[in-house]
Amino acid sequence: LKIALDAMGGDLAPVEPVKGAVLAAKEFDIEIALVGPEELIEAELKKHGPVPKSISVVPAADTIAMEEDRIVQAVRNRRDASINVAMTLVRQGQAQAVVSAGNTGAVMASAITFLGRVRGIERPAVATLLPYSAGSVLLLDIGANPDPKPFHLVQFAQMGSVYMEKVVGMPNPRVGLLNIGEEAVKGNELAKEAYERLVQTKDINFVGNVEGVSVHKGVVDVVVTDGFTGNIALKVGEGVADYILQQVRGAIKSSLFFVVGAVLFKPAMRRALKHLSYEEYGGANLLGVNGVVVIAHGRADAAALVNAFRVAKLASDSGLIETMRASLATAAPVEAAAP
Amino acid sequence: LKIALDAMGGDLAPVEPVKGAVLAAKEFDIEIALVGPEELIEAELKKHGPVPKSISVVPAADTIAMEEDRIVQAVRNRRDASINVAMTLVRQGQAQAVVSAGNTGAVMASAITFLGRVRGIERPAVATLLPYSAGSVLLLDIGANPDPKPFHLVQFAQMGSVYMEKVVGMPNPRVGLLNIGEEAVKGNELAKEAYERLVQTKDINFVGNVEGVSVHKGVVDVVVTDGFTGNIALKVGEGVADYILQQVRGAIKSSLFFVVGAVLFKPAMRRALKHLSYEEYGGANLLGVNGVVVIAHGRADAAALVNAFRVAKLASDSGLIETMRASLATAAPVEAAAP
Repeated sequence: LKIALDAMGGDLAPVEPVKGAVLAAKEFDIEIALVGPEELIEAELKKHGPVPKSISVVPAADTIAMEEDRIVQAVRNRRDASINVAMTLVRQGQAQAVVSAGNTGAVMASAITFLGRVRGIERPAVATLLPYSAGSVLLLDIGANPDPKPFHLVQFAQMGSVYMEKVVGMPNPRVGLLNIGEEAVKGNELAKEAYERLVQTKDINFVGNVEGVSVHKGVVDVVVTDGFTGNIALKVGEGVADYILQQVRGAIKSSLFFVVGAVLFKPAMRRALKHLSYEEYGGANLLGVNGVVVIAHGRADAAALVNAFRVAKLASDSGLIETMRASLATAAPVEAAAP
Repeated sequence: LKIALDAMGGDLAPVEPVKGAVLAAKEFDIEIALVGPEELIEAELKKHGPVPKSISVVPAADTIAMEEDRIVQAVRNRRDASINVAMTLVRQGQAQAVVSAGNTGAVMASAITFLGRVRGIERPAVATLLPYSAGSVLLLDIGANPDPKPFHLVQFAQMGSVYMEKVVGMPNPRVGLLNIGEEAVKGNELAKEAYERLVQTKDINFVGNVEGVSVHKGVVDVVVTDGFTGNIALKVGEGVADYILQQVRGAIKSSLFFVVGAVLFKPAMRRALKHLSYEEYGGANLLGVNGVVVIAHGRADAAALVNAFRVAKLASDSGLIETMRASLATAAPVEAAAP
């Protein structure tokens, strides 16, 4: 298994991606192709001692910046950008997966251009696993599609179900629609129409609406929503976790008594919070393209990138793409299923 | 100051609302009118000993249930429902504010029917204060308008600004649009159009887009969004807080060593978390109607209702409604400001 890393993707590139690759090469039985400007990447690699045999450098002169305008045009016009070269390796069969902490829009545009969509999928979606007390829930879309149509949400449900079944090993995963109430009549127009279509979709186990407060309670296995709501939900959750941690730290500092408690308590707190962090849940999967593509947080450090490699390896080993192609080819044509 | 309480509103009515009223009457210098079926409410009141002089009972034979269908019709046709009688007290000047833990849709329909909208406001919005390390942020809308138009979001920004200035005492509050990126071009169609209009609105201090992760960081004072996204953001945050607390409790139980830490640490944890809970932030304000209306959580207990009374008292004392009428009458007519 060879994984191509966009070594220039992310706010901390190339330092943290290269470091993450070195760590991942030690931890997993994988080969890694570091894609980026050859001299720069090789210089960065040398800082970590002798280069492991499983790591190679694939030259790519150009880079798509994190805050670039006209992302789609940039991706199409600049074939030699690191993300494009990484995708090309997968298309040519020289690698089996791509990991990038770069601009999500750029990764998506590049994946669609060089790998293409899975047949039956109009809009790929970004999916991430979130923790609950006894496992993980898949949330999608978390940002690729700010204004999807109702039938796109049905496709998200189908792709999410395949992911949970194949990669996480959850049989017949329960699908919920993220909504502002549990009743079928609740929600905005998008959610109401998506509900009607999800009820009619036979190849998924749709169990109804799920409220925001229940996402981290494990009442469903796949939470489907549009990319705008999904992104805000994910990031507000991250902000709340940050806030709680900060408050607890503040309370500790304000009292010597608390310092004693805190020292003893820290491991428990750390354990509780790490499951919510991008370090643990290091990579989101771009679902619906013809290849395993894992998008790490733009601020991902080496530890987060190691986890992104883990996510990519799991997806590759599971045969996700082959199953997705097979299931979605036989899935009911959702466009025709209008209520 | 007299506050009318919909004693039949909420999952725990009438027990917790009546208990909350008794506690609030002791804590604040207010009069309370308990609105509901006379015998039932009086029997409930007696459980708490001699009835304080500041509490009276106003009969209302009917009740709108939490999970009722066709809420708007129910509110319009059943004049004797407790929420309608409470609103009527305010319209007639016999009370200055309404508190209810009932169905949000019912409270809103009743407020619009009996109090009317503030001139210039097409869609009232529900606003709630959220904590950050050094104060509070107002988030609106959190559920009243799942599908608003861009100009409604401008009105939310105007109403939220008045609230922060008058009730919280924050001069020239910074307004942010909840979005999936900080750049102007980010977001769904609604957010992009709302951004253009907010930039052009002169009577507010619009500072740009704010991402989900920044809501609890105090980078702005007013966070504006549609009622679908706002509700999901609020409730996912609540779910994440629940999850963290549960994880920490689990970690404590798993080790005797942690128990020692936990006992010492508990007060800090409790202090950190209570700011995120509905008990502390006990009431959301319905803004844009001609009267102070505070909506408590459907599961509000007596302590949460005491806080809802506090929120109602603050708004009433501040002269919020008068200021809102005056500022929005002179505000630029936002419908005409289409880009």
